[in-house]
Amino acid sequence: MNNPDCVTLDTIRDAAARIAPHAHITPVLQSRSLDELTGARLYFKCENLQRVGAFKFRGACNAVWSLDESMAAAGVVTHSSGNHGAALALAAKTRGIPAHVVVPEGANRSKVAAIQANGATLHYCAPTIAAREATAESVRRDTGAELVHPYTDVRVIAGQGTAALELMHQSGGLDILVTPVGGGGLVSGCAIAARGLDPAVTVYAAEPEGAPDAYESFRRGERFTAITPDTIADGLRGTIGEINFAIMRQHVRDVLPVSDAQIIAAMRLAWERLKQVIEPSSATVLAAVLRYPDRFAGKRVGLVLTGGNVDPDALPWMTPRAG
Amino acid sequence: MNNPDCVTLDTIRDAAARIAPHAHITPVLQSRSLDELTGARLYFKCENLQRVGAFKFRGACNAVWSLDESMAAAGVVTHSSGNHGAALALAAKTRGIPAHVVVPEGANRSKVAAIQANGATLHYCAPTIAAREATAESVRRDTGAELVHPYTDVRVIAGQGTAALELMHQSGGLDILVTPVGGGGLVSGCAIAARGLDPAVTVYAAEPEGAPDAYESFRRGERFTAITPDTIADGLRGTIGEINFAIMRQHVRDVLPVSDAQIIAAMRLAWERLKQVIEPSSATVLAAVLRYPDRFAGKRVGLVLTGGNVDPDALPWMTPRAG
Repeated sequence: MNNPDCVTLDTIRDAAARIAPHAHITPVLQSRSLDELTGARLYFKCENLQRVGAFKFRGACNAVWSLDESMAAAGVVTHSSGNHGAALALAAKTRGIPAHVVVPEGANRSKVAAIQANGATLHYCAPTIAAREATAESVRRDTGAELVHPYTDVRVIAGQGTAALELMHQSGGLDILVTPVGGGGLVSGCAIAARGLDPAVTVYAAEPEGAPDAYESFRRGERFTAITPDTIADGLRGTIGEINFAIMRQHVRDVLPVSDAQIIAAMRLAWERLKQVIEPSSATVLAAVLRYPDRFAGKRVGLVLTGGNVDPDALPWMTPRAG
Repeated sequence: MNNPDCVTLDTIRDAAARIAPHAHITPVLQSRSLDELTGARLYFKCENLQRVGAFKFRGACNAVWSLDESMAAAGVVTHSSGNHGAALALAAKTRGIPAHVVVPEGANRSKVAAIQANGATLHYCAPTIAAREATAESVRRDTGAELVHPYTDVRVIAGQGTAALELMHQSGGLDILVTPVGGGGLVSGCAIAARGLDPAVTVYAAEPEGAPDAYESFRRGERFTAITPDTIADGLRGTIGEINFAIMRQHVRDVLPVSDAQIIAAMRLAWERLKQVIEPSSATVLAAVLRYPDRFAGKRVGLVLTGGNVDPDALPWMTPRAG
């Protein structure tokens, strides 16, 4: 596996400098009414306002701009039909190099359209993890493109950590940081950044009850991946990575499970109180603060709203009107 | 009527200083994809992120904090069951004075709840304009409270103008400013602010086709109010005020009508590209840029997104799911 020691506050600072010409410094929102509701002081990092609508652009951009000239010329490849695919496509476009994205047949059309809109070459494969990895590997061999894994790549982890770097500065300091956990790219990078800046920061990962691999891994003290995800939070169905779990054991206090119903309620609250469109995955962090109030009461809490790519016709509590 | 000359760049600057301790300086968002779509450079002023979720807090706050001590002690009164009512209630709360809000029977429950949550005293009346005005007048006589009209009050107009003051600075200068028009409080204040800072700025007002009183007034060259509003943009059903029309004739180039279908399409676009929850009223400005592209192509265009108070169960293109 990649070496967890390769990600440090310094590599995250380097990533921040590298992506600065391309990525947004996203705003941080506060809400008096949510502070009253939770008894905490909440700082929402709006990665739904990041390019491609998700924090994933940070890691992809850092990976793409970390390549030396000759490697870059051959382009990049990944297997992700979600935000990472679109993010890598756009990151490659900012450098003018090819991107290859392996997409399982039957993948969400609007997400595939977003990848294509950013100029990536699509490679379809059967909808299994084995087929995706095999196809990515064969593209890599044929083209010489560099594989950029969505969450185990140390360049990606460092890039994602830049979100916490910004948030720590923008908020003026935090007691607690909460991010969602899927594969663990975000939480591991952000934990290193936040605790690198201030070792007193407590980091929690919020996870859907229906995809509890990080929770189970924490409970057992070893990486556990034998679960079949069943959650509305489509961005968090990935399996916790080895390097990510290793970093989490060092830097993350606990994994906080939340139910899909709690996720949906938190999405509505973000709508009403923050006026932000956020994905179900993003809503896990607010759901966790609401479910485990004792951990947060009286604290300054940073929450990363990871993305806003929700189909306007697919709000979980509504159905499109006929006609 | 109030004297339109009472609102100047200076009174708007005074308003900005007066409300600074209470109101947010709201962020300005940009979107590469909306710029590409429109061929313009768009700067979205996010008043949906203002307190109470709408720009109305600016004017209400300026009015409340303009009162001298003895007047303030008797409180304020208005007849508005919408955002102005909630805004005046909150503004009064920031000063610790009473607020009275006249609410027609049958008014939207969630809006009434927002007014009540901010501690205002509700006075119910029959759902006619005559009844609302008579009730407000009787409250004023009984309590000595100062009447704060939602859009003809010069203190309110100056307060609304602070949104344009901020936007001009945040954007680094504009060729065009577009705001919605209902009663005209926002567009008149913003036009004075923007053109006070830079007389070369062109100001447009976007108006629903189903509530075309400002459009008809412009076309006829005199204030025309004999229309029955029928539009999804509930914030823009009010009738253009006299002082507001007088200011518009001086400072607004034209009124741009948009259909409800165009408003809904623009709401969806704001959702997808800006990740912002905005009211139908707010969406008129983006709808206008899309409908009249020749006026905006190649220009730096400021758009005021006026508010974000949309019931999550009442999106115009969806219906709540059963159960």
